[in-house]
Amino acid sequence: MALLSVLTPVLAVVLCLLIGFMLVKSREPGTTTSPSVGETKAGSKAEFRPWVDQDLQDNTEITANEKEDFIDWVESNDEDLPHVPYSPLRYPVETVLKRSQDFYTLMNQRRSVRFISPEPVPQEVIDNIIHTAGTAPSGAHTEPWTFVVVSDPEMKHRIRLIVEEEEKVNYHQRMGEKWVHDLAKLRTNWIKEYLDVAPYLVLIFKQTYGILPNGKKKTHYYNEISVSISCGILLAALQNAGLVTVTTTPLNCGPQLRLLLKRPANEKLLMLLPVGYPASDAIVPDLKRKALGDIMVHI
Amino acid sequence: MALLSVLTPVLAVVLCLLIGFMLVKSREPGTTTSPSVGETKAGSKAEFRPWVDQDLQDNTEITANEKEDFIDWVESNDEDLPHVPYSPLRYPVETVLKRSQDFYTLMNQRRSVRFISPEPVPQEVIDNIIHTAGTAPSGAHTEPWTFVVVSDPEMKHRIRLIVEEEEKVNYHQRMGEKWVHDLAKLRTNWIKEYLDVAPYLVLIFKQTYGILPNGKKKTHYYNEISVSISCGILLAALQNAGLVTVTTTPLNCGPQLRLLLKRPANEKLLMLLPVGYPASDAIVPDLKRKALGDIMVHI
Repeated sequence: MALLSVLTPVLAVVLCLLIGFMLVKSREPGTTTSPSVGETKAGSKAEFRPWVDQDLQDNTEITANEKEDFIDWVESNDEDLPHVPYSPLRYPVETVLKRSQDFYTLMNQRRSVRFISPEPVPQEVIDNIIHTAGTAPSGAHTEPWTFVVVSDPEMKHRIRLIVEEEEKVNYHQRMGEKWVHDLAKLRTNWIKEYLDVAPYLVLIFKQTYGILPNGKKKTHYYNEISVSISCGILLAALQNAGLVTVTTTPLNCGPQLRLLLKRPANEKLLMLLPVGYPASDAIVPDLKRKALGDIMVHI
Repeated sequence: MALLSVLTPVLAVVLCLLIGFMLVKSREPGTTTSPSVGETKAGSKAEFRPWVDQDLQDNTEITANEKEDFIDWVESNDEDLPHVPYSPLRYPVETVLKRSQDFYTLMNQRRSVRFISPEPVPQEVIDNIIHTAGTAPSGAHTEPWTFVVVSDPEMKHRIRLIVEEEEKVNYHQRMGEKWVHDLAKLRTNWIKEYLDVAPYLVLIFKQTYGILPNGKKKTHYYNEISVSISCGILLAALQNAGLVTVTTTPLNCGPQLRLLLKRPANEKLLMLLPVGYPASDAIVPDLKRKALGDIMVHI
């Protein structure tokens, strides 16, 4: 009995340390329930919500920071590839200057436009623009992007319903917080007419990992940065062709839209771009951009 | 005494739960030592390393996922701004098609080039290109980018020393893991001659937060995505002008380079781009890009 009363605190300590350790472990990424498990349970709306958040847990970029400190991007795959001479067109210096000025003028006319014309745009133009986006550099040349181009009216409408439902929830929550009563203003914020009207919706997915021939996952380092760079080139290509879009990141709808569009589990929605000509009565907020001196430092 | 022997296990349990709780808390982001505290201690090399990792903890994107579900990017600042008509140049459909083809052809010639010519490039060209990058869209129109353009030879060399030191460590660690003995091959990987040779080094910083007039921090949602998009437009502008670069992400050198370049604590290095004309004997790995059908799905 005396022995037991001495041992009890020791046992309690061991037990508690064990509990503490388990608590710590349970917070580590990778030990949480995987999205695919959540998906099978996603029957009712009530069960659906938590899965939405689980599926959004994407720590690929964080892992990248820890594991790969400096990446020359294509270097990993480079070593065994033959090298070829690179001698692109060389412009005279006046031409270089002129081209850099003209391209600035062109790109500076780009604006995010929510009023998109329903006029048709040839599919070949969109093909060229997506092809251009695909010329972006990517970490270890993984090219971790999928561009889903939706022109089917019914599919566009289903996307709109999903996005607006999420938007409505968001704005109501914000309204609750801010005690805003201007419903008319809020309404225009969560109604996304352009999702029906624009001839194309481009949904850009990042491939967070690939599957190796042996079935194992292969992390795509810097996949979000790579796909965002690709998106920058896509925006330049749209502007160059006289088309408009508005950059949107419907993150909470990502899992639902991924399922709707039948994309695999390694793909996460990064952006949704409605694409078309600007409507003839399009308006944009009178935003100004920072001056060059406010964004550039010369040393 | 009997009371004490009964109480001891209870006390032990309470104590251990407390320890467990503290362990859990200490793993939560936000409760770790802040980078600024670490910086003041960063005297010796030994003390410096842990701070390097602390400074890299950037969970801005994660916070964004949780707080802002769908962002129309400029919408937050839009509401109080006057709106103006937007009627850009409208091309005939044949021109749209031709322009989209030509831009693809131009961008598809872009390659990551490590062999950069020391020939001078007019500063005005670089100004135009940075100005073009600054036309990118950004979350809530925060324009969260700083482009540090380095042409001073001594500063370029100091950057090279920092980057190569980190690279050397990385490659030795990898060599240790992989039992690779081909030192010659590794050497070419960590030697970054272009950091001295290129007429310009462009270091792109993301501003992870801003400072409000009342001194409080203002989170820049989607700052990494925004700056990466801007970088995509910058790469397009370089290619358009006949200049080359190689996309590099020297993340572990970020804090040292930030201090060297005297950038404030809210800025984190995202990319380092050496910029110039390609060397006349430049070679590139014979990489292929995915076919359009492998990156695009049409619905």
